[in-house]
Order: sequence, then structure tokens, then C-alpha cells
Amino acid sequence: MLPLIALGQELKSPDGDFTMQFKITDGKPFYELSLAGNPVIKASSLGFELVDMASLLSDFEVKNTTSSTFDETWEPVWGEQAKIRNHYNELLVELEQKATNRLMNIRFRLFDDGLGFRYEFPEQPNLIYFVIKEEKTQFALTGDHTAFWIPGDYDTQEYNYTKSKLSEIAGLMDKAVTPNVSQKPFSKNGVQTSLMLKTDDGTYINIHEAALVEYSCMHLEVNPENFVLESHLTPDAEGRKGYMQAPRTTPWRTVMASKNAGDILLSGLTLNLNEPTKFEDTSWIKPVKYIGVWWEMITGKSTWSYTNFPSVKLGETDFENATPNGTHAANNEKVKRYIDFAAEHGFSQILVEGWNVGWEDWIGKSKDYVFDFLTPYPDFDVVMLRDYAKSKGVQLMMHHETSGSIRNYERFMDKAYQFMVDNNYNSVKSGYVGNIIPRGETHYGQWLVNHYQYAIEKAAEYKIMVNAHEAVRPTGLSRTYPNLIGNESARGTEYEAFGGNTPDHTTILPFTRLIGGPMDYTPGVFETDMTKLNPNNKSRVNTTLARQLALYVTMYSPLQMAADLPEHYEQHLDAFQFIKDVAIDWDTSLVLEAEPGDFITYARKEKGADNWFVGRTNDEEPRTSKISFDFLDKGREYVATIYSDAKDAHFATNPKAYEIKKFRVSSKSKLTQACAPGGGYAISIVPVKDKSETRGLKRL
Amino acid sequence: MLPLIALGQELKSPDGDFTMQFKITDGKPFYELSLAGNPVIKASSLGFELVDMASLLSDFEVKNTTSSTFDETWEPVWGEQAKIRNHYNELLVELEQKATNRLMNIRFRLFDDGLGFRYEFPEQPNLIYFVIKEEKTQFALTGDHTAFWIPGDYDTQEYNYTKSKLSEIAGLMDKAVTPNVSQKPFSKNGVQTSLMLKTDDGTYINIHEAALVEYSCMHLEVNPENFVLESHLTPDAEGRKGYMQAPRTTPWRTVMASKNAGDILLSGLTLNLNEPTKFEDTSWIKPVKYIGVWWEMITGKSTWSYTNFPSVKLGETDFENATPNGTHAANNEKVKRYIDFAAEHGFSQILVEGWNVGWEDWIGKSKDYVFDFLTPYPDFDVVMLRDYAKSKGVQLMMHHETSGSIRNYERFMDKAYQFMVDNNYNSVKSGYVGNIIPRGETHYGQWLVNHYQYAIEKAAEYKIMVNAHEAVRPTGLSRTYPNLIGNESARGTEYEAFGGNTPDHTTILPFTRLIGGPMDYTPGVFETDMTKLNPNNKSRVNTTLARQLALYVTMYSPLQMAADLPEHYEQHLDAFQFIKDVAIDWDTSLVLEAEPGDFITYARKEKGADNWFVGRTNDEEPRTSKISFDFLDKGREYVATIYSDAKDAHFATNPKAYEIKKFRVSSKSKLTQACAPGGGYAISIVPVKDKSETRGLKRL
Repeated sequence: MLPLIALGQELKSPDGDFTMQFKITDGKPFYELSLAGNPVIKASSLGFELVDMASLLSDFEVKNTTSSTFDETWEPVWGEQAKIRNHYNELLVELEQKATNRLMNIRFRLFDDGLGFRYEFPEQPNLIYFVIKEEKTQFALTGDHTAFWIPGDYDTQEYNYTKSKLSEIAGLMDKAVTPNVSQKPFSKNGVQTSLMLKTDDGTYINIHEAALVEYSCMHLEVNPENFVLESHLTPDAEGRKGYMQAPRTTPWRTVMASKNAGDILLSGLTLNLNEPTKFEDTSWIKPVKYIGVWWEMITGKSTWSYTNFPSVKLGETDFENATPNGTHAANNEKVKRYIDFAAEHGFSQILVEGWNVGWEDWIGKSKDYVFDFLTPYPDFDVVMLRDYAKSKGVQLMMHHETSGSIRNYERFMDKAYQFMVDNNYNSVKSGYVGNIIPRGETHYGQWLVNHYQYAIEKAAEYKIMVNAHEAVRPTGLSRTYPNLIGNESARGTEYEAFGGNTPDHTTILPFTRLIGGPMDYTPGVFETDMTKLNPNNKSRVNTTLARQLALYVTMYSPLQMAADLPEHYEQHLDAFQFIKDVAIDWDTSLVLEAEPGDFITYARKEKGADNWFVGRTNDEEPRTSKISFDFLDKGREYVATIYSDAKDAHFATNPKAYEIKKFRVSSKSKLTQACAPGGGYAISIVPVKDKSETRGLKRL
Repeated sequence: MLPLIALGQELKSPDGDFTMQFKITDGKPFYELSLAGNPVIKASSLGFELVDMASLLSDFEVKNTTSSTFDETWEPVWGEQAKIRNHYNELLVELEQKATNRLMNIRFRLFDDGLGFRYEFPEQPNLIYFVIKEEKTQFALTGDHTAFWIPGDYDTQEYNYTKSKLSEIAGLMDKAVTPNVSQKPFSKNGVQTSLMLKTDDGTYINIHEAALVEYSCMHLEVNPENFVLESHLTPDAEGRKGYMQAPRTTPWRTVMASKNAGDILLSGLTLNLNEPTKFEDTSWIKPVKYIGVWWEMITGKSTWSYTNFPSVKLGETDFENATPNGTHAANNEKVKRYIDFAAEHGFSQILVEGWNVGWEDWIGKSKDYVFDFLTPYPDFDVVMLRDYAKSKGVQLMMHHETSGSIRNYERFMDKAYQFMVDNNYNSVKSGYVGNIIPRGETHYGQWLVNHYQYAIEKAAEYKIMVNAHEAVRPTGLSRTYPNLIGNESARGTEYEAFGGNTPDHTTILPFTRLIGGPMDYTPGVFETDMTKLNPNNKSRVNTTLARQLALYVTMYSPLQMAADLPEHYEQHLDAFQFIKDVAIDWDTSLVLEAEPGDFITYARKEKGADNWFVGRTNDEEPRTSKISFDFLDKGREYVATIYSDAKDAHFATNPKAYEIKKFRVSSKSKLTQACAPGGGYAISIVPVKDKSETRGLKRL
């Protein structure tokens, strides 16, 4: 035991800017975090309430502490950077609870961009099996910060963000909880992570978790009086929050802070806290640019279902002899059209939703045996389309909508994955739309976190890449399991067809949802008036066309969809060119401008090439972007093609007004560019190979 | 619509003794049942309460009725009879609910031994998906009958039976709910089915269900004022009772009645209400007589576990280099000993429990990843033992203890079944000890009923026979799925080592638990003093040795275990001879004497041979059995070997006092035999082939 006078332990970040203090006060463990001498997190308590067992909150003594340093640079299989430096100072605190003789460790890692810490329960005689009633990790904030938040909810993240003071959350909660087919908001002061904050003195703070495995997803309960946030785990069907067996660790709780918003966006902290991958061969994992038979169903122009039967029974309903409804999009002719389009324009995969029987009654029925992931509708010829795609040098992307029926999906999973392998599919978009079965469980509890992990690990056995929609939001696990190439797990482009997203939505998502991993945002919508696809759908996509192009740069993802219909792209092949050109795997990523809720501008260098791409997404205000091209190689000439809003563009009234201009640029170039409300711009920058390329081009 | 005056419909049994009346009164459907003019069930209501939907209880009109007759004799793959006649008169009532235009049919089948009825929901526009809040099927009894009951419970049937008046149930419930590792009694007036009753005027009544598939298990709630019983389904984690999709049917509710207790025991009603099997090839399904490495663990003499680690993690814990605890029974040497014993004495299989890693912390921890069903302990050589058994002409029986961790079992099921096939196992004893995971579900809800069915059907794909312990009690499904060769699903012989069963337990079980299907009761315990196996276990098996022999006849099962240790059989090879001789598949079964709670005497003819076996089980009273051998072929001579209690035998004080006597018998023979408290007798009757066999034998 350390002497009682050694009450505090200090940890500094490698550059010395962050200081973390750990201490025991009255037997209770506390940590606090400051940046450049200013508190970011005040003294905050730690621990757990347990079910039918003494709590792990107090009566602790420090048994031992160990300090260490780690500095390694590693290369992700895919990502925003080709190399990521993992450099931290670590403090491991070993605690013993006196009355119970139970051991609990807390491991702190302090990076130059923030703090990660987790609980660890070593092998010990007095604490083996235990059940968490609630985790009591606090984040005591220093004031009534501005927060960019969505309602805490056990089943969905598909909400628009609200920007407000912490104290205002409760009053805005009702409005924020917009309808969803599966939702379970739990508190008028509950919010999800990652939570993005900005203090009055201009410090950006982000709270999230890393490496969520075999544990319940963490939300935060805000105390609007003292601005202390506390962890709120997702309960199981019985209201319990986690079944634990020592020895084991919890996920990392992360706090990032900076005066510079871009540091939050570019931080490698979440990935660094995850384990390196053990996959020996990752050659089968490749970023994908795809199109899909999807948007026309989302907009209501077509249907996933083949018939209009009010209900079906797999294996019993006779689809072969049924009268088709005539609106089934996933048919041979259309898929071939998409295959042709993909091959012509350089997209490697074609997602097809609605290919398999069961869509007639897939939603809102709590149907257990809802899909078998194997049986196509009569107008979808698996083998013919596989071979046709192959002949064109592309492949189809599988779709596994589970309808939240988890046991059913697991029963079919091996056969479904083998079916993929047999039919030249190597990636699957999975979905968990609707309330979870087993009933009583929710999308973000330990039970489902275990399931998502099972699906990813089993997919890797089959060399399959997974893009899981409606799953728990990612927490950096793609470092360990690089076949997890995407999640939706937030309000995506489809909601533009369900009523619209806020125009500033994409200026917030990278600060919140994307902290833990990429999002399959599926941008690229050129026709923003939904009545053009379905006269009964009065939604509008709240964007300009130029901003849709920018999203391929600002919404990082190794998986990028050109979501709109081929015919809409054919109407604007000049703008579409950017989508065809933009890279999907990066050597370097930089943030040129960033203010959460207002605008973000990224510049990224393509992996394995000297091309750069710039993207700017803008909120509902007209703004002017001012950037420098000093990220380019000095002394080198490039051609920049700028796709921007026209002067009079506006997301609501004039979304398709865009301009395309080419310039000669170098590292000395600067750009002042007006951005429309809900607008932005995209730039592709290619090194000059031949002087003829720059003939007639102005210099920027 | 039928005219309002046609309010009642009558149905008679083929022999005319039973009459069932159906009627609508004030829009509510009622049925009643009488036997030989006397009411058995008074007017009883029918229907359902639904979740968030108008109920299906009233406002009904009869749309149509259809009467029919059915008469067919079929042959079960195994059973108590070689042929079973399925002969009934049927009334199909089609109802329409006026305000909602919803359709509900009730199909009644009236046999000579009782009634079965079920609800049917035809394909219809106004009722497709619905959720049952409660089924409201009533059984209005005519008085305060004597009942043989166990507490209604969502998780266990492992209770001793209580014999009492219906009005006394509530007062006796606390005492009846003895401790169990997983239990959820729900009401002081709740009981399980099948429920056995006897009226004051000597009519025996039995209430149960048949063909429980994709539905929740039915219990009964007793109204002690008016003796109306009402269905009480098992809830899911959210308290709901069933997720339904029309078109579909419910299980059958069954009411048997007779003045003759034996008619209840011999009724084919439950099997007849189940669908014929669709299995084309059933040659791989064979009754099994087995021994097992099991009883010594049950008694505490040995352990299932290999080490004494407080906890283990599959795939992480190093068993190879661990110090074994020295008490692990499932080791190579012992299993070989059991293989030798089985081969020597004509047992075809040897159950081995504790063969696989994970037993250190398998119970009471709510452990999700508890077993993998594939990895043996270091001292169990799968391949060596497989081949050794094969060389002796026997095989091992697999054991899959799931610990109630259902998802885990399903994840491994295909691999586990394939492992069986690869290692010459064709039958598995599965177990569901402990609370169910997914937490919130219980052993008898729709979720688990679906799982048990999944396990049986998948087993059939691998040509595997299933004996599921702790599963829902059977309801005749082995007609459709003859590879379901057993269940425990009641308080079995193991409880004799956990404190003892009541001495009359086996005089009740055939009237209650066995109505729906055979029970793996695992009798054959010769050493009834548990301190002889484990000095710390003060339990006594409440039986005489002779009665243990009788159980092979009175407790019908195609799966029969000689449960005790080989060394105990070797001490009584003369008595053991009966167990070796007794058949396990029958051509004909008769009941010679029967009074629930007091005694049962069966006579059965072996299938494919002219041997007969008689068994008598007796309660705690000394009694005299008087039987006639008139079931034997007339004019034929047999040798009967009678294994009976000695004069001074007593289950508690002198259990091992038995006598073995041989006699010449014919169809004219009679026997008067004293039975000890907790005693009985067993008789094997073999046709005389050579006169020398009868030399010196007295005639009975």
C-alpha cells in the first residue's frame, strides 16, 4: 500500500499540454483533466453499482501504480491516414477495496489529443462473476457548454442533431425525439456519444468510448445543475446493464480536447486504443465505391417487395406463381442496367436490396422467421446476374436485412455467408430495422453488441466485409477487425427522403458519429425533389448538388455509394465526374476549416497517388470559405477542378445551380469560395503531367 | 350465417358415450362435455385477450359448421402399442366477430377417450399479425375434485406431486414450491399440465395439450370458488404470451375422462392429435437401453469438472497443463470400464457427462459462452473411446448441457451435431439447467418452445435422436418427430439424490407427465443409501429394489437407463437380470391395476417377440396386488420370473429385501402379491420352448 500522503497521481501527455490527476478522496477514486493548465474535466468519480453485491464505488486504497510510455506508428488496412502514430503516457492504478478485498484497476492513457481510460478486473478470488447495475463514470464539465447532441436512446441514433447549452437539453428533448420505427429514449437529460462540446472560451471537447466489446453501449446522463455527465449503460430485458466475468476489461472512455476543432476530427485516439489486428491476410479487404438498387425504394418510387401479399410465410408462400406487383425494383433487367452503369463509370459493386423473399411483411410485425437470406424472388436470377457482373468486371453487393430478428439471422448466418462466397459476393450491407427480437432487448445492449461482433468475426472467416446499418455506433473496432468497413448507425441520406435532414447535419456528423469509425452516409443525390421520383413523397433533400460531391471528402468512408439513380447522373455527367474521380482510401487527411454545426473543409491525399481532394460542407448560412493550397507539394504544378455552388444556389430553392471551373494551382494558391446555404464545394487536384493540360487555365 | 335459433352444435364420440356441445351465448362461444350423460366439463368459455387489439372473446356468430369422421390405424416408429387407432368425430365451427370482421375457427375432435379442440385462424384480411395477451380457454369442472398437481411455473416441473382438493391448492402452494436452480411460480392457484383429477363419484379426468409448436406452454389457473380452470400461458420477457401470424392453428387442448383410470394411461388421444411423421426414413431411430457415467456425479461422489478452478474461459484456460482435481469421473479408464460393462450386459450405449471443458463454472453464473460442445477434457480421448466402444459393439451417448444459454447452443449446434456424426454418436441427452439466456425468457415460453423444436429438427438432418432434459414437457410431438425419443421435464430419479422423491411419485407420473410423451426417468437404483456413495449426502432413494425393476415397465420410455454404478449391479446380478431382459419397445400395453397416487400395474408385450413384462409400482402404503394373466395367449405355456419385495421390505428401512421366484403360467393364472411401502414387483414372462424349462416350477 502506498502511504496515505501519496494521495494523487499525475500523468502528462507526451507534449506536456494535458495533465491528468488521479486521486482517492474518502476512499473514492477521482480523475481530472486539464489542458494547458485549464481544467477540461473537473474532479470526476469512477466506479460501478452492482446487482446484489456491494458496489465498487468507495472504500478503495491504491495498491500500486505503474507508469509507462508507448510510441509506435502503425498502418491501417484502410483509413484517413496511411500511418497513424500511437504515442501516449500511461498510468495503471491498481485499487483494492478494503472491506471486500476486491481488486479493480484503472488504466489511463494520455495522448497529445486526449485521454482514454478503462476499468480492468484482474483474476482474483473475491470478484469473478458480477452483474453491473450501472457504471458510474463521471465527466464533470466546467460549465454550461454548447453541446451537439442527439437523444440518449437504446434503439436508434437516427436523429437530427440539436445544438444547445447543456442546461437546455431537457427543454428541447421532446422536440428532438422525432419518430422512428424502433426507439427507446430513456431520459430528458440523456444523450448519446460521441458527444461534441464547445466551451465559451473556445475549447472543443469530445466524449466517446473505444473498443466496445462484450459490454453495453454507454450513453451520458447530463446533470443540468452542475454539468456533471455520468455514464448510463444500455439495459438488458431485465434492466441489468452488464454480465461480467473477471479477468476482463471494460471499453475505454475517451475525452478529447483542443482549441482547434480540426484536431478532434483528425485524432487517432479512438483507433489507437483498439487492439492491433490479428488478421494475417487482409488482402481481401478493399474499399468499395458502389451504386445500388436502393434509392428508388427509399423514395417510394419502387418497392422492395415482389408482390402485394399482406403477409407471407417463407417456404410456404408460392412466389413463382404469384402475380408480381410490377413495382419490384430488384429485377434482372434493372440490375443488369445498374451493372452496365457501374462498369461504365468505374464503380466496383452494385448493392441490390429487395432481392430475396420476405419483403412483403418485413417491418413492424415483430416477425421472427422473416428472411432466410438465401431465396431470391422469381425475377432475380442469382447465377445469371453473378456471371453478368463478373463479365463486366464488377460484382453485386449483398444485402442482409435482419428486421431485428437476431436469432433468425444467426441461424442462417453460415449458410448466408457461404451463399455469398458461392455467388461472388464479398461484402454485405446488413440492417437491423425495427425492434429487436429477442423481445425486451435493444439495439445497444450487451446482447446485441455481442451479436454484431459475432457477425463481423464470422464474416472474416468467409473473407467477407461488413457494413452494418442500425447497429451500435462504432468505437474504433475496425482497427482490430478491418473487415468492418462501415456502419450507418446515425441519421443518413435516406432520411432526406423521409422528411429531410437539417442542412447542417453533415457539419456535425464528423464531430460526433464519425469519431468512432466511418459512416456509410450514401451521398451523391443530384435530384433533391422527391416528388420527381414519387409524386406522393414531398420530402426534399436539404442540400445543393455541389455539397453532395463534397461529402465524398468530408464524410470519410472506405465504402462510398453514389446513391442516386443512374438517369440522374446521366443528366449531370460533368458533376458526376467528381464522384468517379474521388479516392476512397487516403494517405493523408487535413482539416482546413472547421466549426461544428457551421462548416468543415477537408483536404485529403489519395493513397498511392499524388492526387488531392478537397471538400467543404456548409450549414444553412451563406458563407465564404477561404483556404490555402499549401498542403500541395512545393514547386509542383497541379490542375484543380472546382465543383461549387453557383452564385444563386440554395439548398431549398435552387439546389442544382452549380459551376465547374478548372485552375492551375500550386502550394502557393489560395481560394476564396462562396458557399450557398446547405451548400459547399468539391475540388479534385491532379498533378500536371503534360503542359498541355494547363493551356488556357487561370492560375489560382 | 346460420339463423340465430341454431345456437348449439352437438358432437358425439364414435361409441356415443361422450357428448360435446358447442354454443354461442350473448356472442360468446362455449363448449361443454359430458360422459354417459354426466357432465365432465360444464359450459366453458373460449377465446383470447390480445395486445393493443380488440379481444377475441365475444361478439361472435357462427358462420358455418362442418362435421366429419376419421378412422385410421397407424404404426408408430416406437411406442407402447404397435398400432394405434385414430378414430374421432369432428366438428369444425367457423366463427366471425361482427364488429371487427375477424374470423376464428374452433375444431373439436371427440374420441372414445376424450376431447381435443384447437383454435384456427384462417387467412383473412382483418387478422394477420396479432399478439396474445392471454388465452382464455376455460375448463369448468363440476366440483371440488381431487387433483394431482405441481405448481404452475415458467421454468421447472421438478416438483413432487401434491394430491389435494382443488380448493386446497392455494394453502399448499408454499410448501409445494421446493427450491430449484431455476423456477418462476406465478400464482398460488396455478398448476401445470397434464393435470390429473378424480371426481368424488370416481371419474378420472385429465387435462393437457397436444402438438405444442411455435406457441407458449399452457398452465392452468384454478378458481377455488367455482372450480373453473383457465388457461395461463407462459409470458415472454415483456409479459406477452404469443406472437401469431395467420393463417395458423394453436396447440390442441385435451380433456380425457373415464371411470377407468387405465383408460387415461392407455389413451392414444395426445399422439392422435399430432401430425403423422413426414420422415421418409426412420431406420436410424431405435430405442436405447443405456448406462452412464452420471449417477456418481449426481450423488456427489465425483465431479463433472476436471479442475477446481473457480472459473474458466473457453479457449483461454489451459486445461492441458492444469492440475486435475482427481474427482473427474468422465475419464478414459472409467469410460472403458463402462463400455466393457455395457457390452457384457447388453446395453447399447453409454452416456458420459462431464466429458467436455467448461464444467468448473457451468451453473448459477448466468454464463453466456459456457460450453462449446466440442472440446474434451484432457483425460477424455474422443477418438480412442469411440473406437474402443465400436470394437465392443456399443457406442457412447452424447451429452449437451446448455446451462440454459440458448444462443450459445444454437451457435454451436451444427458443429456439435457434426462432431457427433464424426465420432459415432447418434443420440444426445441435452440439458437446460439454470435460468435461460436470453435473460427474461423462461423455459416454457414461445421462444424456448421454438428452440427445442429447432434442436429436434436439425438433429433429424444429422440422423440424431434427442433426449431433452429441463425442456418443455412433451405434447405428443414424437409422432411427427420420432427422433425426439425422450424428455425429462419432471422430477426424475436424480432428485432421489437431492433429498428424495415421494414414495408415490411413480404412481402419479404416468397420469401426469407421461400423458404427453415418454420420460427419461433413469431408474434402476439398487443402492438407496446415498451415504454409501458420498458420505456427505444424506439422501435416500425412496424405493425398494424390486420397485426399481418395475419402473422399466411402468415408466414407459424407448430410452431406458440403468442408472446405478456397475459395482452395485454386480452385487445383485440376479435382480439385474430383469433390467437386461426387459424390452424397450412394445407391441401391446395393458393396465391391470391403477389408482393415481396409490399403485399402477402394467402388462406389456414385447414388439417382435411373444415375451410379456409386468410391472407394479406402489405408494407408501403396504398393499396387495391381485392380477390375472389373461392377457397371455390362450393355450400357451410360459415361464414367469417374479422379482418382488420380500415380506419385510420397506423403502426406508429395508429396501434391498427382494425375492425372485419362477412359475409356470398360462392365461388362466392369477397372482396375489404383497407390495411393500414404496415397493412393487416386476415379472418377465417368456413362452416355453422346451418342457425342460418348466421342470420343478410351480404353476401359478
